[in-house]
Amino acid sequence: MNMNLLNEKMIVNKKCITRLSRYRKALSRLKDLGFVRVFSDTLGEAVGATAAQVRKDFSLFGISGNKKGGYQVDALLEKLQNILGKDKDQKVIVVGAGNIGTALMQYKGFERERIKVVAGFDVNAAKINKKIKIPILPIDEFPAYVKKHDIQIGIIAVPDYAAQQVCEMMLSAGIKGILNFAPIRLRGSDEAIVNNVHLQIELENVIYFVNALNKNKKNPFISET
Amino acid sequence: MNMNLLNEKMIVNKKCITRLSRYRKALSRLKDLGFVRVFSDTLGEAVGATAAQVRKDFSLFGISGNKKGGYQVDALLEKLQNILGKDKDQKVIVVGAGNIGTALMQYKGFERERIKVVAGFDVNAAKINKKIKIPILPIDEFPAYVKKHDIQIGIIAVPDYAAQQVCEMMLSAGIKGILNFAPIRLRGSDEAIVNNVHLQIELENVIYFVNALNKNKKNPFISET
Repeated sequence: MNMNLLNEKMIVNKKCITRLSRYRKALSRLKDLGFVRVFSDTLGEAVGATAAQVRKDFSLFGISGNKKGGYQVDALLEKLQNILGKDKDQKVIVVGAGNIGTALMQYKGFERERIKVVAGFDVNAAKINKKIKIPILPIDEFPAYVKKHDIQIGIIAVPDYAAQQVCEMMLSAGIKGILNFAPIRLRGSDEAIVNNVHLQIELENVIYFVNALNKNKKNPFISET
Repeated sequence: MNMNLLNEKMIVNKKCITRLSRYRKALSRLKDLGFVRVFSDTLGEAVGATAAQVRKDFSLFGISGNKKGGYQVDALLEKLQNILGKDKDQKVIVVGAGNIGTALMQYKGFERERIKVVAGFDVNAAKINKKIKIPILPIDEFPAYVKKHDIQIGIIAVPDYAAQQVCEMMLSAGIKGILNFAPIRLRGSDEAIVNNVHLQIELENVIYFVNALNKNKKNPFISET
């Protein structure tokens, strides 16, 4: 990867943002423990990256440390919060109230991160009788709801055959970012991005490596996650 | 990346296996549609990779096509099933019967892929009164169950503070592969691998890119997922 190119064009990729999220979490823990300063090697150790990688990632966003003193925990944390949009609440909707969808509607891990799932949608909204605290609305109310509440981020948790249609509905309603859990690869557009999380494939990955371990008797793989 | 090195040492990484999973799914759909032969460009198009990447991936596993005729769908599908361990049922257990855990215990997408979640475990197993078809057992029965049923693959869906302990319990019980949904990065060992799926970070990624889109008005990012 060409650092100059990255620096000039500010093209950052998903892996880089994932590391920033992890640095942020590590910093938050360090702050709780009373740390005032932190060095790139400590942060790298916390997220499984080299110290050089940490410095590269930060320099992309104009954050520089001090060779002797490292980074100031407070200031760095604030910058990362800002970059990652954690300085304000993020409203999110979920389409699909099956097992995965309802789990995500109630997922406490989101709330802790200032991510608020404000509503769910389903073709059979009336039939959903699970104890969910947010409103579950019929899918045809989706465009109006998104417009009224200025929602930009949506989660797709519908079966594969419905996913493409839901994706198109989201995009035409003005959704800008989609996290897709349907087991089908959806594509973004010039105006919107899609992050596909494929649960079966994540598990198949584990299964593949376990089978390989069984054959080799020793882990020959470098963890990348 | 050095192809020769990969070829000789058969060190493959997660991304490669993820693509194999996607090729397999695409092939399965093509077979349903009556296709007998397929070319690398078609497969690449289906999974978002170049034709050259497809051929590279296959050559790692000794699969070669034919310039004029491409790959035989049936034979290729069988090889991929075999590589990915899809030629037999895979037994999996889930630890943690919260929202995400119970959703995974009931996830139909796994069943379709010959992945059987055979049991769930929780510290409060007796209190779980959700309608789940598989047994939910107290956590202290975990080691005996795993041994008796020869389970090699486990899913962690517990809160962050319990995840490390559950991971160690799994490893010492003989689990070889872990899919971790707890929002903390767990590490594998020489004898076991961990695949961390961090739902908050996946969503934070989307949020970051949406914020960037809002600033730039046009998607400057290449989708990598």
